[in-house]
Amino acid sequence: MANKELQIITGKDEMRQWSRSARAQGKTIGLVPTMGYLHEGHLSLIQESKQHSDLTVVSIYVNPGQFSPSEDLSTYPSDFNGDVNKLKNIAGGVDVVFHPKNLYDYGRRDDLTDAGKKMKIDDLEEGKVVSCVENGGMGHETWIRVERLEKGLCGSSRPVFFRGVATIVTKLFNIVEPDVAVFGKKDYQQWRIIQRMVRDLDFGIKIIGAELVRDTDGLAKSSRNVRLSPQEREKALSISESLFKAKTAAEKGRLVCRDLKDSVIRTIHEAGGKVDYAEIVDQESLEALEEIKSPAVFCVAAWFGNVRLVDNMEIDV
Amino acid sequence: MANKELQIITGKDEMRQWSRSARAQGKTIGLVPTMGYLHEGHLSLIQESKQHSDLTVVSIYVNPGQFSPSEDLSTYPSDFNGDVNKLKNIAGGVDVVFHPKNLYDYGRRDDLTDAGKKMKIDDLEEGKVVSCVENGGMGHETWIRVERLEKGLCGSSRPVFFRGVATIVTKLFNIVEPDVAVFGKKDYQQWRIIQRMVRDLDFGIKIIGAELVRDTDGLAKSSRNVRLSPQEREKALSISESLFKAKTAAEKGRLVCRDLKDSVIRTIHEAGGKVDYAEIVDQESLEALEEIKSPAVFCVAAWFGNVRLVDNMEIDV
Repeated sequence: MANKELQIITGKDEMRQWSRSARAQGKTIGLVPTMGYLHEGHLSLIQESKQHSDLTVVSIYVNPGQFSPSEDLSTYPSDFNGDVNKLKNIAGGVDVVFHPKNLYDYGRRDDLTDAGKKMKIDDLEEGKVVSCVENGGMGHETWIRVERLEKGLCGSSRPVFFRGVATIVTKLFNIVEPDVAVFGKKDYQQWRIIQRMVRDLDFGIKIIGAELVRDTDGLAKSSRNVRLSPQEREKALSISESLFKAKTAAEKGRLVCRDLKDSVIRTIHEAGGKVDYAEIVDQESLEALEEIKSPAVFCVAAWFGNVRLVDNMEIDV
Repeated sequence: MANKELQIITGKDEMRQWSRSARAQGKTIGLVPTMGYLHEGHLSLIQESKQHSDLTVVSIYVNPGQFSPSEDLSTYPSDFNGDVNKLKNIAGGVDVVFHPKNLYDYGRRDDLTDAGKKMKIDDLEEGKVVSCVENGGMGHETWIRVERLEKGLCGSSRPVFFRGVATIVTKLFNIVEPDVAVFGKKDYQQWRIIQRMVRDLDFGIKIIGAELVRDTDGLAKSSRNVRLSPQEREKALSISESLFKAKTAAEKGRLVCRDLKDSVIRTIHEAGGKVDYAEIVDQESLEALEEIKSPAVFCVAAWFGNVRLVDNMEIDV
């Protein structure tokens, strides 16, 4: 059976109009926000979304608001044509790819000059964290903070990251106006932050967390994996392998987090990785645990070469 | 002609359902957010809204998120029955009063205990600004910051104020899902912040700024005016009178802000008021001006007795 036709929309107004007209016809809309370079992990999010709504929108946008000027925005992998081909081949099809050029360009020259100038990184108060948006001088100044959840784990080493994620997701919600949105539990903290934001800001949108997808060797699927050399990839398996061991150990009654964490950190370190963090936290509050007494999740971020990988495993004992 | 029937809605879900069903019938919705104790200023916002939409929702909710624990949340005037009567008598009528009990209660016991406990004011990092929401321990932790515009004027003396305003307005937007929302230019900085937030977060909502309304003696209308004694009220006229004089002087060519400000500050001071700020700022960026060269607005906040009053005047030279 031929798939339905895939529509590519680049304009905000056109996107909102499409959604409103679909809703006026009684259709429900699912949104899967991505930064492109789609892999099977993304495709599983899309399949999840299709189960909860009549129509499916996949957004592809590399968000400068979640990268600091020192991070890998400029080298973030992209392949729009390849992505579109993958989406065309999804069973049952996808309705819209929303692929905006710049979601922070508000089309007013004075903002790009006056306000933009003022927001240049050099002019900002010393010590203030900025993203590539302020650095680009686009005059955007509204940010959403999920004050507690944004702090630990990835938030410690990437201070503008979750501010940028929460903000771009809100923008996408306001443009696409979906009924349902799907986020991968691979980015566990991100998923919890979006859930909390949707609750706290009363968005009329259901958030679905889709399970993490692994390659057959166990490595969590990520767009950044392509930047690993074959050797680095081999070594990076130490992350998932040590996490699986820790989960098994916990299920057998080893519940002291210090021991479980030491073992994971040592394994990754011996494989040549640099651990950013390895934390066992409460599944909801993301607060660090000393002993696993309630549903927990073991979250790891580690560098192999120039690539920062994240992985996690839920532990329900 | 009898007015249409006024519906009182207290639940978030019921409110959203009403809006979605109205929109499905092709109707447009205007929202006028208020904290109640309605006066002619509010009624003029409602009239403005009625000109831009088929249906009108007035929200009445005193938002703890924009008050610091030391401010006047507990004594903020309220008269819900009086408000409803006023709304029933508006020419052409109002469709819905949205009057929620607590927009920060998410109905989960664990948030009210665990997270709530953690957010109690004593436990927070020292020096961190908190509103009555954190103080009440309700587990809400998502806040919208409009980073530049929230800083000066009222933001200097009320550090949680605009964070709270931007957040509650977003919540109301997400619950009511209006096409149009009206804000009074009496709260000039608030109006500009909401405009900027709507642009930066891509809300599909048109923001209308309604002109400030004055009593016949010139005092800007405010719910807080009822708390002025007759003597204080008489003295408080020094605000509008000195602002009118400054505007006239500027229009006659006196464009140096220092002189204009000195004169307003002196007049209010001599009348027995305590000036919080008196600033002449750019109408868009709200940055302080030394000389009036572009469209400006003269903003004043001053205390008379226990009452803090704000007023402003646009100066287009």
